[in-house]
This record gives sequence, structure tokens and C-alpha cells, in this order.
Amino acid sequence: MSNLIPPHGGKGLTCCLLEGAELDAEKKKAEGLKKIAMSPRENGDLIMMGIGGFSPITSFMDEANWKSVCESYLLTDGTFWPIPVTMSATTEDADAINIGDDVALVDPETDEIMGTMNVTEKFEMTDEKKKFECEKVYMGEGTPTADEFWKIAKDDHPGVQMVMDQKPISLAGPVKVLSEGEFPTKYAGIYMRPEESRKIFDEKGWKEIAALQLRNPMHRSHEYLCKIAVEVCDGVYIHSLVGNLKPGDIPADVRVKCIDSLVKNYFVEDNVVQGGYPLDMRYAGPREALLHATFRQNYGCSKMIIGRDHAGVGDFYGMFEAQTIFDEIPTPEGGKGLLCTPLKIDWTFYCYKCDGMASLRTCCHGKEDRVLLSGTVLRKMLSEGGVLPDHFGRDEVVAILREYYEGVTDKVEVKLHGAATGK
Amino acid sequence: MSNLIPPHGGKGLTCCLLEGAELDAEKKKAEGLKKIAMSPRENGDLIMMGIGGFSPITSFMDEANWKSVCESYLLTDGTFWPIPVTMSATTEDADAINIGDDVALVDPETDEIMGTMNVTEKFEMTDEKKKFECEKVYMGEGTPTADEFWKIAKDDHPGVQMVMDQKPISLAGPVKVLSEGEFPTKYAGIYMRPEESRKIFDEKGWKEIAALQLRNPMHRSHEYLCKIAVEVCDGVYIHSLVGNLKPGDIPADVRVKCIDSLVKNYFVEDNVVQGGYPLDMRYAGPREALLHATFRQNYGCSKMIIGRDHAGVGDFYGMFEAQTIFDEIPTPEGGKGLLCTPLKIDWTFYCYKCDGMASLRTCCHGKEDRVLLSGTVLRKMLSEGGVLPDHFGRDEVVAILREYYEGVTDKVEVKLHGAATGK
Repeated sequence: MSNLIPPHGGKGLTCCLLEGAELDAEKKKAEGLKKIAMSPRENGDLIMMGIGGFSPITSFMDEANWKSVCESYLLTDGTFWPIPVTMSATTEDADAINIGDDVALVDPETDEIMGTMNVTEKFEMTDEKKKFECEKVYMGEGTPTADEFWKIAKDDHPGVQMVMDQKPISLAGPVKVLSEGEFPTKYAGIYMRPEESRKIFDEKGWKEIAALQLRNPMHRSHEYLCKIAVEVCDGVYIHSLVGNLKPGDIPADVRVKCIDSLVKNYFVEDNVVQGGYPLDMRYAGPREALLHATFRQNYGCSKMIIGRDHAGVGDFYGMFEAQTIFDEIPTPEGGKGLLCTPLKIDWTFYCYKCDGMASLRTCCHGKEDRVLLSGTVLRKMLSEGGVLPDHFGRDEVVAILREYYEGVTDKVEVKLHGAATGK
Repeated sequence: MSNLIPPHGGKGLTCCLLEGAELDAEKKKAEGLKKIAMSPRENGDLIMMGIGGFSPITSFMDEANWKSVCESYLLTDGTFWPIPVTMSATTEDADAINIGDDVALVDPETDEIMGTMNVTEKFEMTDEKKKFECEKVYMGEGTPTADEFWKIAKDDHPGVQMVMDQKPISLAGPVKVLSEGEFPTKYAGIYMRPEESRKIFDEKGWKEIAALQLRNPMHRSHEYLCKIAVEVCDGVYIHSLVGNLKPGDIPADVRVKCIDSLVKNYFVEDNVVQGGYPLDMRYAGPREALLHATFRQNYGCSKMIIGRDHAGVGDFYGMFEAQTIFDEIPTPEGGKGLLCTPLKIDWTFYCYKCDGMASLRTCCHGKEDRVLLSGTVLRKMLSEGGVLPDHFGRDEVVAILREYYEGVTDKVEVKLHGAATGK
């Protein structure tokens, strides 16, 4: 019997990925269907529905669900869900589809048919509606008014750009998933379905598992978050995003290499499991932190580590807005509420006076005693070939990153986050 | 409204300490009662019943409760309770008492009448029964057979000695408490009733509070346990034993001075509350860890930090027996079970390769990389005036301890615990 937290929504893992004869038949059928090209974000969302990562969701959302999620964090059946999961199409494509039609969902980068959808609703996604979604989902304490938000969001917020660039019609309906694309091969040993991580946790006899979300190289601040979790939980799941990031971010294979080295040299390996998931970053800050906790529950994690500016970008969110939101969301009962709880950790750093890693909750010393770490600062220094201060990173990890940056020819200017510079 | 964990037993704080006119009347009455001299342990237990620290217990135990607690961790009404709370008397005194009599309970060190008891039962505490209690309560993995246990327990186990030295009759019955003795004045600002700590936690808006049990000077290992707790809880309650210890242990006032200095120099003061409680150490290891969690629940703490060899002495207990016992105790429902949960932390130390504090759960390096800390080792080195290794203690704390040891003329030979020496 498993001691693990049940999947979100009270229906077990709802996996839309077909197998065996059913898969073959659907693949054959799909060849004859109208093809809809997916964005990378839509592709990642589809795969998550395939592997049960988005349990209990098995459909791209209709307008009522989309609106309810934006407005009140709830699906129309009352289940907690923090972020829209929608599929967009051109007006031309949408006009050619009748309600009740099956369509084939294609990854345009590989031309592979990734799944099929039975279209149960088409709804316009006007600019006004897109703006409504953006203001509900992406607007935070950094830009508290819509005016302030829109002044910078269109240029500086990759998640907002993704929404605004969506095609004008949304197609809703249940999906069947035919493929996980290149994730299982490209990230062999890292990419993992929820049933796989749950099996590993069960075999280890774990019950309380904390998930660490990673999209940056794992530096000492992440290591510290992880080690706190290892101290107080049965184990930690270092869960890397292997979908798409914004320009200038470090690719998943390099990040995975860094984690491997760090775990091997600085962790008790038995207390750590490493995995990857196929989503793109939305940079939705608090809302995305909630999504992270929601799908980590499906992966078997009872706790989600939430640090400073989780899933943030630029100055859009308050430093700890992604922590406090967990206290504000609706808590429906009967399996419909989020069960994975946040492990909230304050801003962390090495402190000379503390003689080790610390956080603003534990260290009473001054800025001058602290080596302030952030992935963004680290990237900037490494990309410029600068010397890192002592205690900033682990030598083994820094060596991997230096090697990567030596091979990068198109240096991207990295925007420094206000807070990350210690301001 | 308080967010705090409710007191143990489901009856609120059951305080037997009288106040005002009721106190005056009972004091007057007590002068005329037969006087029973209490042992220091009995005195501490009485005060805990006075201030609600032992909620829901308001009586010294009768034979049925004593036996049930020894055998199955339960009071006869089905409430969890881990350790006997009994009052002993000489045969001569007991013979002079009739069932139904009130007696005065006296602290022989000060001659103060600390409370009164209505005697509802007298029962013989034969050597055989004492041995039964000792084997149930004090025998652990270190001496798995009664033969091995008794070979060393009588000489080397202060808790066993306390039981074996008890007077031959146990008096049971409800108590009224008239005084907290010298604790409120001698440890002003530290000694605290559960209602006081609860008030402080409430004023801070805390909900999840971890208690750190302290009977040794707070060195870096304790500091690390505390800081993990501060990272993951609302705050930490550093709760020092201010009752009696075994010879060679450091007195409470010196320990409190060390904590003050440590909190001031190395903690964010707002996240820490310091308090003291009036019990003697029983050194009952796992059973005492359970008692610690039970009365910390009364003080308002939802978590009890349990490290290596908690409340242990010599080699009587397994290193983590005081952690695993929490998974083995009965869990009665309806407020009768223990709600305060253990925050289990592995053996901790400074590690040069980790570049900070770590534990066996987080550090994969070798013994040669670690500065192994233990209160016992620290005491030995300080009492001998030796030089401490780097990262062993905080300078401010070490200075206080050196000053104390310079004033100690009767150096007590400190027995080193096998595991504490790194063996």
C-alpha cells in the first residue's frame, strides 16, 4: 500500500496517453484528421494530460472553465486549479471544424501528431479576453495596477507574450495523447511520468516528499533549500523543467549535469530523486507556484518548496507573493482542494558570521557579511567570465557552467532583478 | 482566536495551582495537615500539574494508571501518557494516613508546603514493581535484555536510581498546588507557564512552533536543529530544563546565559522564544522524548525537535530510538492522542566539504571532514581547559562556558558516550 499523497482531484492519475492497440488505432485515425499546430506551451500541457501530471484535467478548457480558473482558481466542478490550460487555433482552422469533430494536435517543430482532441466547444479569445487572463494570472504586487502592468508586460513578460500571441480561437475538449515527443529519449533517466516517481518513492518507503522546482542551474541557495527539505522530510524530488525557457536561460541538459554533479558530491544520494517534466515556463509567479504544487502532488510530493520570487520574472511579483498565495486560495473539500503544502523558505545566502548558509529568518547579520546568491547573478557573472566570490557556488558545478558558457557565442544580455542585486 | 495546537487530553490546560482567596484558605488548611517530604522529581511533577504543563493530569497516579502507563502508554481513561507520575512516602507516613485524608506536600530543601493531595489510594511500591517500572520505562536498545540492563543501570542510570530510591509506598490522588517554589524568581523571564508561552505565540500570530529541549549548553549542533526549525515553522521555543540534572551537567543559569548570547548574536530574535520548565531530567530516552512532546503540546508547540539520543544517558538507548518510538505509540482519537509531532533530525555536525553544518542525512563526506559535536565532548574539553576545534562552538558561548569552568573547583569526570566520540 502506498503512503503517498493521492493525486489531485480525487480521481487518481487521469492519464490520456494511449497504449498498445488503442494507440495504434488512434494513430491511424489521426492521420486522416484535420491538423492543428500547437505552440510549445500547448504541447507541454498536452503531454502533462497524457501522463497524468495535470490530473484530474483531461481536456483543454472550455470558456466556462477558463473563466472560472482565471477568476476563482476553480474548475466549474469545484476542483481547485490555478492556471488556464487552453488550445488555440487560427480563425481559418476553427471555421473548418464542427463541434463534435476530432482533430489531430501536431508539434510543428517535429511534425509529429502528439494527440487528438474531440472538439466540444470553440470560443473566441479576443484581445480583451487575453488581457483579462493576463491581468488575472500574471499581474502581481510588482505592478499593482493594470496601467503599470501593461506598460512593461508586453515587452518584458514572456508568459504574457505567450498569451497575447495565442491564435484568436480556443478549442476545447477531451484529449487522447499519442506521444511524449522527444522527452523520453532526449532526457532519458530524467524525464519521468508521475506513476514512475510514485513507484520510486513507494519503493523507498517514503511518505513526505518535498519537490524542488528547478529551471536554473542548482547553486548553493537551491542546495540549501533542498537540504532543509532532506532534514525534515523523507526525501526530496529535484524536479527540473525540461520544456522551454526564455532566451538566456541555461538549457536543461546542462542543468541536469549540474544537478548530477551536485548530488553526487554534496548529497546523500539515497535521499534525493531527480526528475524532469515537460512544461514550458509561464513565469506566472504565484499562480505558477500553485500549478507547481498541483502537479507535484500528482508526482507524489506532499510538499512544494517555495523560495524567493518563485517562478517570477523581472520585477512583476512580490518577493514572497508565491508563498502567501497558498494562504489565500479556496480550499474545497472532498479531494477537490490542493493537498500539497508549501515549504516556504525565506531569501537564502552564505553568511560569513553564521559560518554557513542561512536565510533572512535565521541570520541577523548585515549585508556586508552575506554572499548574496541568485541564479540570475550567477548567469551574468559566468557569461562574462568573471571570478565568483567564495561560497557562491560549488566548484564542480561552476566548472560545468563555465564550460557551457565558453561554447555560447551569442551572449544574451541578462537583466538583473532588482532584489537579486541586493537592492 | 488562537491558532495554536490544543493542550493534550482535550480538556484545555488543567491547572491545579490555586490563586487568591482559595490559595490563602488552602495554605492555612495545609499548615495543619500531615506533611510528606517530596523528592525533587516529585516536586517538579507537582509544579507541572500546577501550571497545566502535565494537562490533562491533575493527580499523582494510582496503581492502575501507573501500571497502564508503564505497559501501554495510556491512562486508564484511554488518554496517551508516556511516563509514571507518582508520589512516594515512607511506610511510617503512609500508615498514619487514611484514605480520604488530605496531606501537605513539602519541598524538604526549603521546607515550603508546595501543595496538598487528597489521598484516594495507597499502594506498595515493592522492589519488584520498581524493577518492572524501570524495565518498561528506562530499558532501551542499548541494553536489550534485563540482565544487561541491570548489570549497569543501578550504578550508571540516574533515572533508574531515582525510581529504585523511591520510598516504599505510593500515594495517589488529586492535588492542589500552592506554590511554584523559587522557579519564578530564580529564573525570572525564563520560567514560564504554558498559558504564558501560548499568549506569546498568539501575540506573534504563530501556529506551527517547534520546541527545542535543552539541558546542555546550546552549541552549534543545537543551533542547527533550531535553525532548521526556524526555516520551516513560524518560530522556535528554546525550552530549557531548569530542574535538577546529574552531577557534572552545567547549571541552568549558565545555560540560559549561553542561549541569550547565542540568540542575540546568531538568531533573528523575533523568531525565537526562550523559556524554562521546572522538571528534573529522568534520562528515560524514548519515553522521556514522548513526555517532552506531551508537555510541549501543552506549552503550545506543534512540533518537538528530536535529535540524536534525545534525553539519553550513557549507552542505554539506540541513537534514534527516541525518534522511532513516535511511530510505535498508541494513537487514541478524540483528543486523547498525542498531537505534537516529532521533528526528527539526524546526527549533525560541521563539515568542511559541505562548508557548513550538515547531518548524516545531507552530508556524504567522510569522518575526517567533520567536526563532531556533542555537549558531552564539549563539557569535557572545556572542563579540562583544552582548545576547541574550529567551528565547534560560537566564541561568545565558549567564553561564557570557560568562565564557568574556571570557577568550578570540583571537576567531575565526564563519561564520554560511545557515539559522541565518533566511534
